[in-house]
Amino acid sequence: MAARAAVDYIKKAVSLAREGEIDAIVTAPINKEGLNKAGFKFSGHTELLAHLTKTENYAMMLVGGPLRVVLVTTHLPLSKVSLSLSRKKIYQTIRLTWNNMKYFGVKKPRIGVAGLNPHAGEEGLFGKEEKKFIIPAVKKAKKKGIRVEGPISPDTIFHRALKGEFDCVVCMYHDQGLIPLKMFAFDRGVNVTLGLPIIRTSVDHGTAYEIAGRGMANPQSLIEAIKLATRLTKSRNKRL
Amino acid sequence: MAARAAVDYIKKAVSLAREGEIDAIVTAPINKEGLNKAGFKFSGHTELLAHLTKTENYAMMLVGGPLRVVLVTTHLPLSKVSLSLSRKKIYQTIRLTWNNMKYFGVKKPRIGVAGLNPHAGEEGLFGKEEKKFIIPAVKKAKKKGIRVEGPISPDTIFHRALKGEFDCVVCMYHDQGLIPLKMFAFDRGVNVTLGLPIIRTSVDHGTAYEIAGRGMANPQSLIEAIKLATRLTKSRNKRL
Repeated sequence: MAARAAVDYIKKAVSLAREGEIDAIVTAPINKEGLNKAGFKFSGHTELLAHLTKTENYAMMLVGGPLRVVLVTTHLPLSKVSLSLSRKKIYQTIRLTWNNMKYFGVKKPRIGVAGLNPHAGEEGLFGKEEKKFIIPAVKKAKKKGIRVEGPISPDTIFHRALKGEFDCVVCMYHDQGLIPLKMFAFDRGVNVTLGLPIIRTSVDHGTAYEIAGRGMANPQSLIEAIKLATRLTKSRNKRL
Repeated sequence: MAARAAVDYIKKAVSLAREGEIDAIVTAPINKEGLNKAGFKFSGHTELLAHLTKTENYAMMLVGGPLRVVLVTTHLPLSKVSLSLSRKKIYQTIRLTWNNMKYFGVKKPRIGVAGLNPHAGEEGLFGKEEKKFIIPAVKKAKKKGIRVEGPISPDTIFHRALKGEFDCVVCMYHDQGLIPLKMFAFDRGVNVTLGLPIIRTSVDHGTAYEIAGRGMANPQSLIEAIKLATRLTKSRNKRL
């Protein structure tokens, strides 16, 4: 079965990376439904890699064109996002982002944190998660010396990032980060997992079975994923 | 009190527009917290105008740069979006969009409908609202002769709209539409209320008290709102 074989390949790749036989892992898309049907309860490669490397604190970063975004929550129904947020999770994602920016060649990172609700809650009128989770997480991060600002209205923060105010935007949910990213880097976005003990990059698109074998697929995202894995490897090796 | 005066002005404007003394209403931002504190239970001008004109079926459209988006739900916490969706509401928003596109000079409109969840639910793995509400609403609209496609993955649909595949994107929640719109038209987005018996456009930004009186405010969105009100008036009058 294809999904089972894919999982075996990943296991092999992880052990080669941990033994130092390879420098990084670059993954192509996986069919999440197939993975689930084969009995693997992971919503994608990222969760599988975290499981295999026993990593609890990890995050999905997307890099594309002028933008970098990191997601606090990923592949779950929009209605479950609020329930999945916590002060701890948001703080950990900010810290992970901060600790990793050096590998992207950013020396004094500035991190922006998006709100969850319209207008970042507008003083609690449109939701309380900003006051309950995001503001305390940002405060804690500031105390630890992290250059971070937020919560910022989700419809404003990406404009500010594009103007150069932030090197990375911490997003509360999948589409909050993916919508702006894919507008600027539809065919060339790269997914990077922060927090793993190995370097892993990936394409940022799905399997697209509907165009399989028709010679139409655009390889640009995979090419960019390989390039970024190379850059991250060089950056890591310099620091070893 | 400022909020009460603002409400009085709007009432006056509505009666002038209904009597034919003025052609359209253009609104500046309103402070929603102030409005609420003054005892008005409206989340903004749009809801107040709908109330004053006894309009039940209306929708907020944002126009900016190359994009037009219409929102099924507007100013509410993200955690309440799923509970506020229904097949009927989505269908009505699609129909309202379809019926109004002629005023924007679009002759054969093509409407795209965004999913609610990541990857538009990925076959129900990441949420059921697509199957429960959006697919049936799109089917019904197609039966009525509306040129519509969806649900489409939220991180893909705006790229397709930018390429010219859709004249308007129907969005499930505020930031789904506002994030992409403000990336392309940060200073010049215009808010239009569809479904009212009068023409109403508005700026797409808030009060920004923090820069009040400092000579820094950018009037571009208000200028664009006035221009669009003029175009919509001409377009309506041609059809009278």
